[in-house]
Amino acid sequence: MAASAGPEIERLIALLSKLPGLGPRSGRRAALALLKKRDTLLAPLALAMAEAQAKVRTCSTCGSLDVTDPCAVCADGSRDGRLLCVVEEVGSVWAMERGGSFKGRYHVLGGLLSALDGVGPEALRIGELVARVGGGEVAEVILALPATVDGQTTAHYIADRLAQTNVPVTMLARGVPVGGDLDWLDDGTIAQALRARRPA
Amino acid sequence: MAASAGPEIERLIALLSKLPGLGPRSGRRAALALLKKRDTLLAPLALAMAEAQAKVRTCSTCGSLDVTDPCAVCADGSRDGRLLCVVEEVGSVWAMERGGSFKGRYHVLGGLLSALDGVGPEALRIGELVARVGGGEVAEVILALPATVDGQTTAHYIADRLAQTNVPVTMLARGVPVGGDLDWLDDGTIAQALRARRPA
Repeated sequence: MAASAGPEIERLIALLSKLPGLGPRSGRRAALALLKKRDTLLAPLALAMAEAQAKVRTCSTCGSLDVTDPCAVCADGSRDGRLLCVVEEVGSVWAMERGGSFKGRYHVLGGLLSALDGVGPEALRIGELVARVGGGEVAEVILALPATVDGQTTAHYIADRLAQTNVPVTMLARGVPVGGDLDWLDDGTIAQALRARRPA
Repeated sequence: MAASAGPEIERLIALLSKLPGLGPRSGRRAALALLKKRDTLLAPLALAMAEAQAKVRTCSTCGSLDVTDPCAVCADGSRDGRLLCVVEEVGSVWAMERGGSFKGRYHVLGGLLSALDGVGPEALRIGELVARVGGGEVAEVILALPATVDGQTTAHYIADRLAQTNVPVTMLARGVPVGGDLDWLDDGTIAQALRARRPA
């Protein structure tokens, strides 16, 4: 793209274009919207980003994101530590929490096994999961992974690895649409799939 | 949307969702992408936004955005001050500059006349345009406004207002697709429409 605005503006456009859902053209539109609303949108967003950058950290227990470590879910004594829900990403934790029907704890893998993308077990937080389940408190592991090839491969691999612990491993019922991503499901579907969970 | 992450993260999501092209769901995905890449994406973007907020200002001559006032185009003595191109928004200036075939100066209206949205002449920089053209240097006013109802209404209104100055007013040729927005055009179409401009 030819330079058409000053370097400060071009840099803003280039960085905005890297956000998922935005490209070079929509990045320019976003930059223009920000620059037109410098006081009402650009300044608050810059501040929110700086705050998030300074405060948000990865929970060392579950791998989720929060301003505290352990995160609010891990630190909440009223939640059921015997139920451990394994998810692909932090976005899935947010989706489950919006559903509001799960009162246990989470374990964020940080991705899925993928032969195509060369993602092996050591790239994910699977060792931490095995150690956590081996700790004794967990009475059931619920795999809330997408119903895709990579999701199911990961589910089977985890079920195998956890077999030695004798802790029952379940997975979300086939209420999850095939090929669907947990982050995009409506709350009702998540609640239904959670109720109808079955042995892996 | 139910709170599912901490208030810092929810605030970031809410502000990102206000960007054009993003909604509540894609705002969450953008926030997640930023929080996963805190050092490589979130920090540089927060910095770029803070810099833009501190440095970028509206040019008091043409109404465009730049880190200097007058902007780089208005301050560039090698550009032809006799040609004045009137555009709807700063995005149109960027689009014209990417095309690279225009070597005159700009006047940004800041919108279009719209009976439906209640935008009258006083809401736009039309008074400034008349004063600027009356100043004597301008030898031709080129209206580069979208080929929409509001764009053409605005073009006719401006042509009427400038009739008293005896400066010729032209408009971009019908190379601009009807209903199209200047910001989304390819450079070749812009160059062609500029060459074939005709009296308003």
